[in-house]
Amino acid sequence: MPITAEQQAQIDEERARSQPTRRAVAPGMEEHLYTAYPVLDHGFVRVIDYMGDDAAITQAARVSYGKGTKSVSNDEGLIRYLMRHWHSTPFEMCEIKLHVKLPVFVARQWIRHRTANVNEYSARYSILDREFYIPAPEHLAAQSVVNNQGRGELLEGAEAARVLDYLKADSARAYDHYEEMISDEGQAGLARELARMNLPANIYTQWYWKVDLHNLFHFLRLRADAHAQYEIRVYAEEICKLVADWVPFAYTAFEDYRLGGATLSDRALDCVRRMLAGEEVTQESSGMSKGEWREFRATLDGPAEA
Amino acid sequence: MPITAEQQAQIDEERARSQPTRRAVAPGMEEHLYTAYPVLDHGFVRVIDYMGDDAAITQAARVSYGKGTKSVSNDEGLIRYLMRHWHSTPFEMCEIKLHVKLPVFVARQWIRHRTANVNEYSARYSILDREFYIPAPEHLAAQSVVNNQGRGELLEGAEAARVLDYLKADSARAYDHYEEMISDEGQAGLARELARMNLPANIYTQWYWKVDLHNLFHFLRLRADAHAQYEIRVYAEEICKLVADWVPFAYTAFEDYRLGGATLSDRALDCVRRMLAGEEVTQESSGMSKGEWREFRATLDGPAEA
Amino acid sequence: MPITAEQQAQIDEERARSQPTRRAVAPGMEEHLYTAYPVLDHGFVRVIDYMGDDAAITQAARVSYGKGTKSVSNDEGLIRYLMRHWHSTPFEMCEIKLHVKLPVFVARQWIRHRTANVNEYSARYSILDREFYIPAPEHLAAQSVVNNQGRGELLEGAEAARVLDYLKADSARAYDHYEEMISDEGQAGLARELARMNLPANIYTQWYWKVDLHNLFHFLRLRADAHAQYEIRVYAEEICKLVADWVPFAYTAFEDYRLGGATLSDRALDCVRRMLAGEEVTQESSGMSKGEWREFRATLDGPAEA
Amino acid sequence: MPITAEQQAQIDEERARSQPTRRAVAPGMEEHLYTAYPVLDHGFVRVIDYMGDDAAITQAARVSYGKGTKSVSNDEGLIRYLMRHWHSTPFEMCEIKLHVKLPVFVARQWIRHRTANVNEYSARYSILDREFYIPAPEHLAAQSVVNNQGRGELLEGAEAARVLDYLKADSARAYDHYEEMISDEGQAGLARELARMNLPANIYTQWYWKVDLHNLFHFLRLRADAHAQYEIRVYAEEICKLVADWVPFAYTAFEDYRLGGATLSDRALDCVRRMLAGEEVTQESSGMSKGEWREFRATLDGPAEA
Repeated sequence: MPITAEQQAQIDEERARSQPTRRAVAPGMEEHLYTAYPVLDHGFVRVIDYMGDDAAITQAARVSYGKGTKSVSNDEGLIRYLMRHWHSTPFEMCEIKLHVKLPVFVARQWIRHRTANVNEYSARYSILDREFYIPAPEHLAAQSVVNNQGRGELLEGAEAARVLDYLKADSARAYDHYEEMISDEGQAGLARELARMNLPANIYTQWYWKVDLHNLFHFLRLRADAHAQYEIRVYAEEICKLVADWVPFAYTAFEDYRLGGATLSDRALDCVRRMLAGEEVTQESSGMSKGEWREFRATLDGPAEA
Repeated sequence: MPITAEQQAQIDEERARSQPTRRAVAPGMEEHLYTAYPVLDHGFVRVIDYMGDDAAITQAARVSYGKGTKSVSNDEGLIRYLMRHWHSTPFEMCEIKLHVKLPVFVARQWIRHRTANVNEYSARYSILDREFYIPAPEHLAAQSVVNNQGRGELLEGAEAARVLDYLKADSARAYDHYEEMISDEGQAGLARELARMNLPANIYTQWYWKVDLHNLFHFLRLRADAHAQYEIRVYAEEICKLVADWVPFAYTAFEDYRLGGATLSDRALDCVRRMLAGEEVTQESSGMSKGEWREFRATLDGPAEA
Repeated sequence: MPITAEQQAQIDEERARSQPTRRAVAPGMEEHLYTAYPVLDHGFVRVIDYMGDDAAITQAARVSYGKGTKSVSNDEGLIRYLMRHWHSTPFEMCEIKLHVKLPVFVARQWIRHRTANVNEYSARYSILDREFYIPAPEHLAAQSVVNNQGRGELLEGAEAARVLDYLKADSARAYDHYEEMISDEGQAGLARELARMNLPANIYTQWYWKVDLHNLFHFLRLRADAHAQYEIRVYAEEICKLVADWVPFAYTAFEDYRLGGATLSDRALDCVRRMLAGEEVTQESSGMSKGEWREFRATLDGPAEA
Repeated sequence: MPITAEQQAQIDEERARSQPTRRAVAPGMEEHLYTAYPVLDHGFVRVIDYMGDDAAITQAARVSYGKGTKSVSNDEGLIRYLMRHWHSTPFEMCEIKLHVKLPVFVARQWIRHRTANVNEYSARYSILDREFYIPAPEHLAAQSVVNNQGRGELLEGAEAARVLDYLKADSARAYDHYEEMISDEGQAGLARELARMNLPANIYTQWYWKVDLHNLFHFLRLRADAHAQYEIRVYAEEICKLVADWVPFAYTAFEDYRLGGATLSDRALDCVRRMLAGEEVTQESSGMSKGEWREFRATLDGPAEA
C-alpha cells in the first residue's frame, strides 16, 4: 500500500479545501488534485498543482489581453496547428507539479529529462521507508534476443521463483542491515548519507517534479512509448490520463501528431512515393539498412490487431 | 496610455471572474491578477497566472503529503535557511506568468535570461503599434565618465532638446514609412517580416513571460540592481512589488540575502578580519586592485544616506 | 564588405598558427577555422572553435576508454541508429563556437533558441558600426496572401524603389543622429545605452554563439527550413555547409532523418495505409482539416521539380 | 584498481597520438588529457576533451576578431572583473568533457546539476562490473548530532567492523545473484533492465559528462565545499586541480571570489559596519537567528588553524 492512513488523511484534508481564484481553472484537473493514483506495487502519482488550461495555450500564442471572443473551435484548430508545426513555446505556458513515488532505478531514468524542477526526498537527512519494488510474475521477462536493451519472453517455473526469492530476500536483508547500521541504540550509528549505499535500486524514493507541458509531452512521447521500460511506462501512462483531463485539446493533438505519429526519413518518404506510384519496393531497392527497413515496414503495417 | 479601452474591458472581465480551486491560493497575488501596472511611457507589467505560495516552497523542500501541521514561523525560518544556503530547487516550485509591454532594446536585455518561457508578439504575422519609448527629461543622461557602460550627468538645454527631437522625429518617420511600405492599397505591400526592419529599438513589443521563482530572483537581483540600465530596472522594481505580495517570506529573505547582501572575496574577508582586529588596511596592503578596493569600501560604507 | 583589412589580418594570423594537440581533430573543420564566410550584405559566419568529431559521438554513446577497434562503418551505422531513434545525448558531446555578424531583427529570432551560450557586442559599452542590411531587389517580397507570416510575389517598379529608398534613407539618418547624440564634442554626449534606441532593426550586431551539435541540429532544422525567413535561412544554410565538413556521418543522418524527413500524424499514417491498400482517400474521408490535408499532399508529392 | 590493463593500453594509445590544430590549445590541460586520476577505491576522473583557455574567455567578452594585442595582464584583470561582477556568459565559452567512474549514490547527487550533457553506461544494454565502494575506515563516520545531513565522529571497534562486513557481504551477495539471474546458461536469463534493480547504490557506474566552465564552477563551489558529502567532494577536488592547470586565471579568480568568498546578508553587513565602528554586537542585537549568527561568526573567524 503506497499511502499510510495518516498520509491519506492529509490528502483528504487538502482535497476538502476550496478557495476562490481569478486564475484559469481546469475543471478536469481539479477533480484529480492531490489524489494518489497507484503505480506498481508501492508507487503513485499525484497532482499537487497546475497552471493554465487549453485556453492558456492559445492566449499565449496570441499574446492576448483577455480570454477574448475567439470560439472554442478556433482554440482547438490553433492548438492542432501549433502542435503540427512544432511551435513549442505556447505549450510551455502550462505547468504541472507532481508528487511521485517510484523505485530508484526508475528515478534514475526519469531524471535524465533535465528541463524540469525536482525536489527529492533526502536520504542524507531522512530515513528511507522499507518499500521495495518486486515485479509481478507477469512482468518477469528474459533479456530480449532481438533487442539489446529490451525484454523478451516471460520467465517461468523455477527460474522465475528464484528471481523473486533473490529480489525479496536481498532487499529485506539490505534494509535490515541499513536499520542496524543507522541505529543509535547502544552505538554511534552510521551517518545516513553512508548507510543508504547499502540499499538496492528497487527501493522506493519520492519527489516533487514540476515541468511545463511542452517538456512533459516530450517525456511522455519517450516514456509512454512501447519501447520504454515497463516500470517507467506505467508512470507515463498514468500521467497521460491526467493530462488528457487537464488540457483535452492539447492532449488529443499530442496523441495524433506525436504518440501515434511517426517520422519518416527522406529515403522512407521516397519509398512511400514509389509504392504509391505502383512500384514494388524491397529492402534492397529502398536504400535502407535491414534494421531501418524493418522499422519502416512496421510503421506502414501499423499497430498489430488485438 | 499603455492600454486601450477595449483592452481594459477585457482585463476587467477577467478580473470579475472567480472560480473555486483546490490549489494553493496566494491572496496577495489574487489582488494583482490581470491588472496592468504602468511602466515607462507606454509599457506595463501584469500577472496572468501564478503557481504556489510560501508554503509551497517548504512543502516541496519537505516532499510532504499535505500542508502538514508545521507552524507558519517554521515556514519562515526554513525559507530563510534555504535562501541562505543557496538551495535553489524549492524556490523553483513556484511559477509566475507575466504579460509585459516593453521597448525592444529592453526586451533584448531581458531575453538574455534563458531559463524562462516566452511568447512574443509576432511582427512577421501582425502589425506593430505606433508606440515608442521617449525618455522623460529627467532620465536623459550623458555617458558616464567613470563607468564605461553607465550613465552620468543629466543632459541639459539645447542638447537635451535636440535628443528628444531626434528620437521623436525619427521614430515617427520610421513608423510612417513602415505603414506606407506594408500598405496594400494600390500596391502589393511589403512583407511584414521585412518592413519591421525599419523600426527603431525604442518601439514597444510585448510578450508572455513565464519563469520559476528561483530564476525570477536571479533576474531581479541583476535587473533591480543600481547598476542595471534604468529602463529595465523600473520593470524589475515593479515585479519586486508583486512578488513581495505573492510570497512575502521568500521575498523578505531575498531582500536580505541577495538584493541587500554582498559577496566578499577571500581577500576581502581577510581585510575585514584584519580591520576588526584593529589593523589599518589600505588598498596597497589589501592585495586588491584599485577598482576592487573601491567596490569593497563602498560595500563597507553601505547605502548612501538620503 | 563585412570585414576590415585589420580584422582580416587578425584572422589570417589566427589561421597561420598551428599547435599540436592530443584532442580529437576534425580535418574538414580545421580548414574552415576562423575564416569569415559572407552572409547577406554585411554579415558573416566563422568558426572560432569546435569540440569532437563523428567518432566522439559513438565514443560517448559507448562510454568507451579509447577510440577502440570499432570500424568506421560501425560508427556510421550507429550514428544513423542514434539519429533515427531520437537519442540526443551522444550528439550533445560535440560543441561548436561561432562568431556571427547579423542584423538585429535576425538576432532577435536566433536568440529564441535558448540552449546555447552567447556573448553579444555591447551597445551600452561600445559604438555600433554604420552597417545596415538593405535587401537585394530579388528578396523584396510582398506579404504572402496564403501564409500569414510569409512572403509572396516580388515587389516591382516604383513600389520596390520606394521601399529601398526608405530603408536606406531612414537608416542613414538614424545613424547620423545616433552619432550626433553620442558625440562629446562641445556637448555632454548622450549615454550609449540610450542613444542605441534610435537605431533600426536592420543594423548589424555580432556575437559569439556556442552550442552543442544536438541543439545546433534543432536550430538548423527550423531555420534551414523553406518556411524560415530568408534572412535567417541563409545563415543556417552556411552553417549546414560547415557542419557537413565537420561531422559528415552525423550531418548526412541529419539530412536524411530531419531536414529531408517528415512527421506523419496518426491520421496521416492511416491515410497512407489506406492509399497503399488501393483506396482513393480525399480530404473529406481523411479526417484532416483542409490545411492539414494540403500539407499532407505536399509531403507525398515531394519537393517540386526544378 | 579502477582501470584494466586493456583500458590502460587504450588510454596510452590516445595519449601517444598528437595532431596539429588551429584551435586554442591549453598546454596545462594537454598534459592531463585521457589520464585516469584515481578517486575513491575504484573510481576515476579523466579529461576526454576541452574547448578554450583563459584567452577564450576575454576574447568572447570582447567579441574580438583575433587574439588581439591585449596583454596577458589585461586578460587576468578582465577575468577577475568578470568573475567579481557575476558575468557568467564569457565563462560559458569554455567547455570540458570528462569520463568519470563513480558510485551510483554519488552519481545521483551529481546528476542534479542539470546544465550539463551526460552519457551514462547503460545497465539496460550492458552488464555492470563487480565493483563497489567500500569506505576506508577513516571515512566511516556517525550521523552528525549538530547537522541533520552531515557526519560526526568516526565509528570505532566492533561497530565499524560490522558496518564494513555488512557493506562487503551484501554487495558481494547482490552481485552474485545479479550474475545468476542474468545468466543464460541453462535458463532464459532475466532482462538486464530488471536484474540491475538488485544492485546496491555503492556499485560503480560511469559516464561522459560535458559542461561549460561557468556551470562547472557552480558545481565545484557546491561540491568542493566543506559541507558537501565526502564521497562527491573528492571528485570535485580532483577536478579543481585539472581546472587550475587548464584556465589558471579563471581558476584563481574562482578560488578568491567563490570558493574562498562568502555572501553576507543585509543584516550581516550592517553588523560588520557596527563592529567596525566599535560597537559590541551580539546575536540578540544582530537581528539574526541563532543558526545564522553562528554561521556569521564562523565566516568572520575564518578557516580554522591547522
